[in-house]
Amino acid sequence: MPLYLEQLETPAPVVDLDRLAMNLDRMAAYAAVHGLQLRPHVKTHKAPRIAAEQLRLGAVGLTCATVREAEVMSELTDDLLLAFPITGTTRLRRLMNIPPRVRLTVMLDSQRTAVQLAAAADEVGREVHVFVEQDVGMRRTGVQDAAAVVQLAEFVAERAPLKYDGLGFYPGHIRAAIGAQQPQLASLAQTLGASLEALDRAGLTPRVVSGGSTPAAWRMHEVAGITEVRPGTYVYNDRATAAVGACEWDECALTVLATVVSTSVPGQAVIDAGTKALGREPIDGARAPGADETQTAGFGALLDRPEVIVTRMSEEHGILDLSRTEWRPRVGDQVRVVPNHVCIVVHLNDVIYGVRGQDVVETKWPVTARGREAPEAVPAW
Amino acid sequence: MPLYLEQLETPAPVVDLDRLAMNLDRMAAYAAVHGLQLRPHVKTHKAPRIAAEQLRLGAVGLTCATVREAEVMSELTDDLLLAFPITGTTRLRRLMNIPPRVRLTVMLDSQRTAVQLAAAADEVGREVHVFVEQDVGMRRTGVQDAAAVVQLAEFVAERAPLKYDGLGFYPGHIRAAIGAQQPQLASLAQTLGASLEALDRAGLTPRVVSGGSTPAAWRMHEVAGITEVRPGTYVYNDRATAAVGACEWDECALTVLATVVSTSVPGQAVIDAGTKALGREPIDGARAPGADETQTAGFGALLDRPEVIVTRMSEEHGILDLSRTEWRPRVGDQVRVVPNHVCIVVHLNDVIYGVRGQDVVETKWPVTARGREAPEAVPAW
Repeated sequence: MPLYLEQLETPAPVVDLDRLAMNLDRMAAYAAVHGLQLRPHVKTHKAPRIAAEQLRLGAVGLTCATVREAEVMSELTDDLLLAFPITGTTRLRRLMNIPPRVRLTVMLDSQRTAVQLAAAADEVGREVHVFVEQDVGMRRTGVQDAAAVVQLAEFVAERAPLKYDGLGFYPGHIRAAIGAQQPQLASLAQTLGASLEALDRAGLTPRVVSGGSTPAAWRMHEVAGITEVRPGTYVYNDRATAAVGACEWDECALTVLATVVSTSVPGQAVIDAGTKALGREPIDGARAPGADETQTAGFGALLDRPEVIVTRMSEEHGILDLSRTEWRPRVGDQVRVVPNHVCIVVHLNDVIYGVRGQDVVETKWPVTARGREAPEAVPAW
Repeated sequence: MPLYLEQLETPAPVVDLDRLAMNLDRMAAYAAVHGLQLRPHVKTHKAPRIAAEQLRLGAVGLTCATVREAEVMSELTDDLLLAFPITGTTRLRRLMNIPPRVRLTVMLDSQRTAVQLAAAADEVGREVHVFVEQDVGMRRTGVQDAAAVVQLAEFVAERAPLKYDGLGFYPGHIRAAIGAQQPQLASLAQTLGASLEALDRAGLTPRVVSGGSTPAAWRMHEVAGITEVRPGTYVYNDRATAAVGACEWDECALTVLATVVSTSVPGQAVIDAGTKALGREPIDGARAPGADETQTAGFGALLDRPEVIVTRMSEEHGILDLSRTEWRPRVGDQVRVVPNHVCIVVHLNDVIYGVRGQDVVETKWPVTARGREAPEAVPAW
């Protein structure tokens, strides 16, 4: 007997399995058509099941942000990139315990991180590949110019058992890569071009030039030199991705199933999904040009009534603003909320439910790589 | 051999055990001195270990928001309040599986919720107590006036096996209850006074009048009729609680231990605690009157340098603004961040570390009541 959505306890993250499959296909096809290597970031799903599908569809390896993610994903692939400047003796030792068959690459932006990584690698006699990270405009991590790129690449190249292997960047500031003119793309091409030229001159031509992020990924073939993309969000998409035009509303695969629990205050309905289920992730209207206020206000919107927005939240309460709708829900009604930022929603949950069609719960899977603990500290699901 | 902070992998939530003990004592003493019953909300800590200490110090029972919290806490007390209008057949059946020795109370604000609860209680032949919830100004849940309070109380009183038992409210809008004039307190007293008078006239005098929230808790003895408080945050406190004057900075017991991972971008340092470790919980300056911008900007601040603020975040990155300090950290340095909203930080973690003094890690405990799953779905820690 099938299990139906209405039988699930709420709040619960539910994934439309057909949309998930289409999203996985679409990015794999994009990368293949344009000759880009696809190395998906697992931070969005943290699930071996989806990572396996990404690899089956041609991904060259996986991208991770945490050691826990790397540990879990090492069971699926022999090629892992840590797109985070991992530091700390304890954490680096743990990273070095990843099975030796796995080619480990770390993206880093400082000599201190390189020295620590080299020491940890040396301790276990392991070669570790390195991407030098450049800041291309997001102002988060990454060295600041072509000269600094060359300097750090040289430093790494001389520091066995590290192996200088590539140039990495994260174009998270490029939010509106779909449509219209894109001066940010031109700026990115110029910045990368200068670095690649300088690296060539220094005899340090990178084997890999690795960029990504879901909104920017779809345009990376237009930027000369890039060989690899690392999108994460595309598997599920979310309201922010739709607001910047990098997916359609009906490509949002993950929703939070919630129940209306109160209609006492006029003009609103309260659901049982608050910050502990949806996160509190505003969409910056300034970074979503072309989107109107209905697409960016609040913290999520109903899948089948995108004009109904979660405008306020407490930890376990979400307030639906009913001012833009004639719909008047009753206590007990279920709704499905498209969250602003799906990566946070996944991180808040231990289990994801897979739905086929309108309402049949076909499967569920654990968010295995969630959390920070080493495997021995957390029992298997 | 002791374990030191510097040996922990970051990001990690660490609790100053002496501050925790003082915070627990202080609220217990306040309630005892003023003849208020203390029913702490476990949403902040989700840990049996701390709940047990709250009960040892005189708490009459515990407050929960989720069924998972109630299941875990039912091992510690025979008196649980669900301060949430729980609905849904599956979830209510699960709630009714709490051992029968436990006196269950549900706070609710609609006839529909009462009817569903009565049906579930009837199915297992269990008496369930009810607090009728009134909205006292937060505009979240709760019926809107004294007449509606009486109407719902009457409805519940006639609906065995429900047992009408009290009036509840959540004064989450009262953020500045410490200091100065407090028109909101006067308004609360007036609202509650009208409801209590109407209930008396209807022969429905409540046994319990239950309010709470950490900032308001300290003033609840000034409001006639209140018999019980339900603060949660006070065990750890946080930057928002300090900003509204409801705790001192050195009463913040939980910090997120983090490591500086990048200093490449001038004027800032990047730590490995982002939204997945700190949450993204702004402090609304308008709701923290008297606080200056340094106390409310951003998403957290360093414990020993509160002028250094986490101004931006990605999922695994926090950006420390160095514009207000001469301090220039190096990659690898550890810092301790006081988060804006501690309840969210706890919800993001599986394990909390207990620290004695400056840097000795004395113990750790699981966040047992985290998550949504029934016990059989989640192995014990």
